[in-house]
Amino acid sequence: MNERMKIQERDIIRLIDEKKLAELKGYLSEMNPVDLADIIDDLDNKNSLIVIRLLPKELGVEVFSYFDVDKQKEIATMISDSELKYILDQLYFDDMIDLLEEMPAELVADILKNAPYSQRKLINEFLKYPEDSAGSIMTIEYVDLKEEMTVEDAIDHIRDIGMTKETVYTCYVTNASAKLVGIVSLRKLVTEDTSKRIGDIMQTDIITVNTHDDQEEVAEVFKKYDFLAIPVVDKEYRLTGIITVDDIMDVIEEEATEDFQKMAAMEPTDDDYLDTPVLKLAKHRITWLLILMISGTFTGAIIRGYEDVLSKMTVLSMFIPMLMDTGGNAGSQSSTLIIRGLAVGDIQMKDIFKVLRKETMIAILVGIALSFVNFLRLILIERIDSKIALVVSITLVFTVLMAKLVGGMLPIFAKKLKLDPAIMAGPLITTLVDAGSLMIYFKFSTILLGLR
Amino acid sequence: MNERMKIQERDIIRLIDEKKLAELKGYLSEMNPVDLADIIDDLDNKNSLIVIRLLPKELGVEVFSYFDVDKQKEIATMISDSELKYILDQLYFDDMIDLLEEMPAELVADILKNAPYSQRKLINEFLKYPEDSAGSIMTIEYVDLKEEMTVEDAIDHIRDIGMTKETVYTCYVTNASAKLVGIVSLRKLVTEDTSKRIGDIMQTDIITVNTHDDQEEVAEVFKKYDFLAIPVVDKEYRLTGIITVDDIMDVIEEEATEDFQKMAAMEPTDDDYLDTPVLKLAKHRITWLLILMISGTFTGAIIRGYEDVLSKMTVLSMFIPMLMDTGGNAGSQSSTLIIRGLAVGDIQMKDIFKVLRKETMIAILVGIALSFVNFLRLILIERIDSKIALVVSITLVFTVLMAKLVGGMLPIFAKKLKLDPAIMAGPLITTLVDAGSLMIYFKFSTILLGLR
Repeated sequence: MNERMKIQERDIIRLIDEKKLAELKGYLSEMNPVDLADIIDDLDNKNSLIVIRLLPKELGVEVFSYFDVDKQKEIATMISDSELKYILDQLYFDDMIDLLEEMPAELVADILKNAPYSQRKLINEFLKYPEDSAGSIMTIEYVDLKEEMTVEDAIDHIRDIGMTKETVYTCYVTNASAKLVGIVSLRKLVTEDTSKRIGDIMQTDIITVNTHDDQEEVAEVFKKYDFLAIPVVDKEYRLTGIITVDDIMDVIEEEATEDFQKMAAMEPTDDDYLDTPVLKLAKHRITWLLILMISGTFTGAIIRGYEDVLSKMTVLSMFIPMLMDTGGNAGSQSSTLIIRGLAVGDIQMKDIFKVLRKETMIAILVGIALSFVNFLRLILIERIDSKIALVVSITLVFTVLMAKLVGGMLPIFAKKLKLDPAIMAGPLITTLVDAGSLMIYFKFSTILLGLR
Repeated sequence: MNERMKIQERDIIRLIDEKKLAELKGYLSEMNPVDLADIIDDLDNKNSLIVIRLLPKELGVEVFSYFDVDKQKEIATMISDSELKYILDQLYFDDMIDLLEEMPAELVADILKNAPYSQRKLINEFLKYPEDSAGSIMTIEYVDLKEEMTVEDAIDHIRDIGMTKETVYTCYVTNASAKLVGIVSLRKLVTEDTSKRIGDIMQTDIITVNTHDDQEEVAEVFKKYDFLAIPVVDKEYRLTGIITVDDIMDVIEEEATEDFQKMAAMEPTDDDYLDTPVLKLAKHRITWLLILMISGTFTGAIIRGYEDVLSKMTVLSMFIPMLMDTGGNAGSQSSTLIIRGLAVGDIQMKDIFKVLRKETMIAILVGIALSFVNFLRLILIERIDSKIALVVSITLVFTVLMAKLVGGMLPIFAKKLKLDPAIMAGPLITTLVDAGSLMIYFKFSTILLGLR
């Protein structure tokens, strides 16, 4: 909360304390609804209820739509059924669906009982769209025009209904069987001759998405075409809703967050960290930790296999952490760049050989540089025997090479196998590379140091 | 490229081969400019130049704006100076600036020489905004209204100039000294009485950003308020431009990409992987690898310090990889969640104790579970001495606890010190936790196994 909002909050509390409710009402109606939602969230229960009840109805609903779902549920239990019904009626359709999805089943049934049949049917339909599908994030609030309308008819129509629609800036033209036949922007309507037919000025080359498309694909389309909204159609090309750009910004952020989580070996969730119970957080983390812990013991088995080598020259064990860490880091760098490139579309399946060539060259450059620094350090600072320093440094070059190739290739293979490339990230790559680099290390040790 | 576009591409090539250029011209003018840009990008140089020259001028400029900057530069060298000047004149201002920023200095000087003074001044001003500032991504194409205009005047004004403006959906009201005094949406203009004064219907509670604000902050404002565009003002609150939501979507993606790179121990860049030279990629990766390699040797020093313990019982070295990997993974999980939470605003500085408590509880749960599985595995499958299994399992609990606390706290401390929390990610945490866990391991070994 910034300074301006803190002052506003103090003003509000003062007006409540002084019981100047008429003045408070005027004060509130001038405020930005997003800021107001933040401030109400910060007030205690009693004061927040006073403020909500004082809001002009339309503003009240808008403010309500900016609360997070927990706060909405909390308020829903504090206000009367008729107040709740009013809010639900007035909320944008997609916000209402989001709220209903979070409410206890009995309460939803209660609300549906009182809703008119057509709305009840629609709500039920929406609640059934799979999570993360285009259907689940679309809204049915859009301006629907017909080809035979004139521009003037269309503007009159928008004037009648437009103020309650989530976006009026693109209007959708449907035919008698509800199929989408064209789109026309409000910009076009305003600048065209008022007597022209909509059918003559509408654009017919329309990009649409399907109700069952994944929200990630929808986000791709938005990014590609710079849309403000996109129409959602069903299998028969009937217009079922639209998705607006503000919801897509949330999708882009959510998808990035999920990738971050997967890449750090967690099950992805879009739950807020602070609101998620400890047990659930622990559950999301333990599966991969277990899998990787068990795989990590293969690396241990390699060490066990060379126990006699190690016992003859324990100093060798001193370099195991450095080799493992550098391999893991080098591999994570490559896999992260490739995973992100695949996610944002900079890298395609067909680029596999380019990636292979590039990572090989980078690995050789980086590996030799690191190895050189390491050799000098071992000889000059640590005063290690030069033969051992050589073994460590050669192993380092091969470790980096292997790490970069494994890190660069596995995400692409995962994509080829229709798996999520994000699981082929740091933690898994590290485990794989560890085993490989220790095998190389011990092989060189036995050969170059004449052990065993 | 999808099926529909492949068919379109074949049609275009066929029409060129058959020299049916008039027909091709008609065909092209019906196409979506984004798709057309993709298809042209796929054509060979000769054909792409033919297609570009056949496009209606306005469509041509739009298609041009969808090419990436490299392609734009390539085309700029193929076409005549007057054609290039036309395109630059017609491009949205922010697209033109992006292109100019990428062109060789002589060419820019050449273009500026021929531009009218006022435009030249503006271009120069824009080129000077710091990278990633609001000024560097804003456009000057917006609808500027005056308070004393009527709604009818305003709509006439939009009709005159609106079709060339990047967004007409929010209009900005400025006073005689160019200061921003209000905003009014096209939606409002269309639905209000045409005789009303703009000054009476405009909204005066305006959210703005400053030209020097960081683009990441601007993205935060967009996400909070669900805007389509935001006005950019200078220190004197004069309107200098607007930022539109499509550019902000790119910013959100860019910022996430940079965090991915930093978290995998690379210097961030928004260059495309495939277009970046090997040397530059290697340079971005080597600094952190070197730093972490050197720090990794501290872990080696700890092993060296316990060389006599290891030489008495080499089997202990077998568990080093598993302990290091599990610690690293557990720490990465925590740091990733916290870094992302700080980035999207779910976690604030004030939540530090909540995070501390939560990570401690998760660490105890996860640590004990892992440790239990590990103990059973060592006893039952690996047939390890139960005392050693106990040492390994106890170390595991403390390693996970330490990893989760270090991983959970360091990003928050980094933020407190005004550093980027993203550098406190997996690789650095792993290096720190490695050293700690080996110290714990050897301490328990010497005590419980009676070594030394």
